Amino acid sequence: MAHRRNTAPEVGEWLDTLVTSDLAADAAGDLGANVRELRRRRKKLTKVPAALVEEIARTASQSHQVWAAARKADDFAAFRPWLEKMLRLRIEQAEAVGYSGSPYDALVDDYEPGETAVSIARVLDALRAELTPLVAAIVKSGRKAPSEVLARSFPVAAQAEFGKRAAAAIGFDFDAGRLDTTHHPFCGGAGPRDVRLTTRYNEHDFGDGFFSILHEAGHGIYEQGLRADQYGMPAGEAMSLAIHESQSRMWENLVGRSYGFWRWLYADAQRAFPAALAGVPLDDFYFAVNESKPSLIRTESDEATYNLHVCIRFGLERALVEGRLAVADLPGAWNDAYRDTLGVVSPTDANGVLQDVHWSEGMFGYFPTYALGNLYAAQLFDAAGRELGDLDAMFAAGEFEPLLGWLRRNVHVVGQCETAPRLVERVTGASLSAAPLMQRLRAKFGGLYGGSLAASAAS
Amino acid sequence: MAHRRNTAPEVGEWLDTLVTSDLAADAAGDLGANVRELRRRRKKLTKVPAALVEEIARTASQSHQVWAAARKADDFAAFRPWLEKMLRLRIEQAEAVGYSGSPYDALVDDYEPGETAVSIARVLDALRAELTPLVAAIVKSGRKAPSEVLARSFPVAAQAEFGKRAAAAIGFDFDAGRLDTTHHPFCGGAGPRDVRLTTRYNEHDFGDGFFSILHEAGHGIYEQGLRADQYGMPAGEAMSLAIHESQSRMWENLVGRSYGFWRWLYADAQRAFPAALAGVPLDDFYFAVNESKPSLIRTESDEATYNLHVCIRFGLERALVEGRLAVADLPGAWNDAYRDTLGVVSPTDANGVLQDVHWSEGMFGYFPTYALGNLYAAQLFDAAGRELGDLDAMFAAGEFEPLLGWLRRNVHVVGQCETAPRLVERVTGASLSAAPLMQRLRAKFGGLYGGSLAASAAS
Repeated sequence: MAHRRNTAPEVGEWLDTLVTSDLAADAAGDLGANVRELRRRRKKLTKVPAALVEEIARTASQSHQVWAAARKADDFAAFRPWLEKMLRLRIEQAEAVGYSGSPYDALVDDYEPGETAVSIARVLDALRAELTPLVAAIVKSGRKAPSEVLARSFPVAAQAEFGKRAAAAIGFDFDAGRLDTTHHPFCGGAGPRDVRLTTRYNEHDFGDGFFSILHEAGHGIYEQGLRADQYGMPAGEAMSLAIHESQSRMWENLVGRSYGFWRWLYADAQRAFPAALAGVPLDDFYFAVNESKPSLIRTESDEATYNLHVCIRFGLERALVEGRLAVADLPGAWNDAYRDTLGVVSPTDANGVLQDVHWSEGMFGYFPTYALGNLYAAQLFDAAGRELGDLDAMFAAGEFEPLLGWLRRNVHVVGQCETAPRLVERVTGASLSAAPLMQRLRAKFGGLYGGSLAASAAS
Repeated sequence: MAHRRNTAPEVGEWLDTLVTSDLAADAAGDLGANVRELRRRRKKLTKVPAALVEEIARTASQSHQVWAAARKADDFAAFRPWLEKMLRLRIEQAEAVGYSGSPYDALVDDYEPGETAVSIARVLDALRAELTPLVAAIVKSGRKAPSEVLARSFPVAAQAEFGKRAAAAIGFDFDAGRLDTTHHPFCGGAGPRDVRLTTRYNEHDFGDGFFSILHEAGHGIYEQGLRADQYGMPAGEAMSLAIHESQSRMWENLVGRSYGFWRWLYADAQRAFPAALAGVPLDDFYFAVNESKPSLIRTESDEATYNLHVCIRFGLERALVEGRLAVADLPGAWNDAYRDTLGVVSPTDANGVLQDVHWSEGMFGYFPTYALGNLYAAQLFDAAGRELGDLDAMFAAGEFEPLLGWLRRNVHVVGQCETAPRLVERVTGASLSAAPLMQRLRAKFGGLYGGSLAASAAS
């Protein structure tokens, strides 16, 4: 129904009239961007037959249910024909939309406008090549974070109160949003004046609840920074999934897992959770919230290894879409990639190739936005630091407004008046690259797991 | 006329019939690739109104003549309205073709299928960031190549004979091609069985004639390696401009300016040019043919600095096409970029912004293929070396067949059955990156201009 409404001929006529009118003369202004973006989206939609859109929607819904059951039963064979069908349908969609280099280009464009298989491979392959030896060096160091302190007793009511205060401190506006509890954390709502965050609490896992709050608050702060006067229009919408993720990851990791942040908040944490944290030195706590080790599950992985989970998925889904990998060979290719990259292999498909929901609904091209988000976060954060001064010192003093203001001015208000790759070039002076994130990860994990690690992995 | 023939409705019907037939079932096979590629090109052409195609052709022809006169008169103002018109027409073409991220994407696709402004920026910005300090370190070293030996007397007849023997030795087949003299060197012809090379000779510039021959022979060797049974079809056509350039640059620079190559050929050169080279040690000659220094003119620049000339042009033409730079501001932006990157500024526009023909004919998107070619060359050459062993030792023994055979198998016979970015990923195991070329340039110029340079520039 939405497809039929979006592709109605009169909408096309309106947009064609607008695009040549004086109203849209300034291509970089709100109106120009709105007309250009709405017209681009509509053009793309009109290329896909309504029957195909319908079949994709129906199949995705069924496939999702089959996947959920197959994961529970650890039965890839049951899911396989549905994955094959979703893949076929989405390739058909890509063929209808058209592309230059790869059908993957037409799919990824739905999530990250301006990106292609090639442009993503250029930056994620570099990241994978540099991050794989760093993670191997972390393992080889033999050092172990004191992560057991985070599994002590953290009463849920105190966690909720503590997390809410932290979210407010970094800049989430509780007068324009709220925080509730669900099974899976998320950020939703209805525009910048009504942003709904959720998280979950586990008495014996402080990190899960707290960093989920910071992560979702990061998403929420971005939503609250979008232009209310452009709500519902491209100029008032999030630029891309990767830019959205850059905001959540920045507050979760680059702020929330920084040493400065805990210099500011740790005494407070010890007062809120005396049974768990009294007598635990700040440095131990800092190491605990920054533990890094290869694991099987993407959503439970850490600041360093997370990106390798994403690189693996990008490589596999691109090969699927480009016809270089058959669905039947996917579980084996999955396990091979994990062995080569993270050095771990899941004994079950449930914790392997079946762990994520995305492919079951045909979301090929979505995964890379997670790693691109981390890259954008690091590169933007460095640029903010060059302009604002010592961010870590500000965090140690509980000052988050400078960073928040910088993000508001340079990222949030832009909406979709620019694409993400262009924004980062303009604001940071360089094309997106793996260098800022890798520099940051080498410095942090070199400090925690042994100084020689930073040098040894920087080949 | 060509446009009308290419976009004739019956051609579309034939291709639509073919694409769903069993003949094209194997997408990676010759027939599948031919149908896919011909259909893709035709689809793109049909989007551009015939009147626009005609206007672009007519304007390009006039603009070219105005540019030639303006360059002679050092008069950018005379050329400016024509450049503005060419730019406007090509942007109009891009709008007609459609794009996701940038109008530049639609233009670059004509020269380098599968590339976009973003994918190119990812790799060329990294190259520029690493190469700029290397070139600065070369200047700072204070060392000077003994380039005057190349300006001694090299009789033209002896140059022609010597160059022809070298071209034959590296693998150019004179039974399927020839070498003649023109004002500007080029490679043309009519298919793999009839390849025409040209060069020019200057008695007092050995390098210009000899390396032009190796460069054009590299193009010619590629043409001779294309599939004769697919002549006129995509499967028998060069993959892209960058891949074409990778072959010319590989034989010119990675082979022809290597130490091994001259260990093999230098005694011969001394016999051919006794007046010039008797008493000149091999190492001096090797340094002379590898002189690197910032200069104003792209076509006269060297293996290292050449790429910076291209990076500058890519940045400027992309900004022009994306509306971030006005043609009126182009000469100033050109000089600023040269100052920041190469540290030199031309006193005239004739030797500055007016030096190249490309923009006068509206060829926005062509320049980056030159630098991409150098990157492909280095990455493919490394992969060949990993498979074949010590290439430099082979060259020192006059053995070029192993490299030639490798290129035939892995690059030449592929035609357009694959895009360039995918080919390099499959053959070298990695997405195109600046690393192989930078590693090579650091090693070579570190050796010539001082060992510390390699380390100091590798930041």
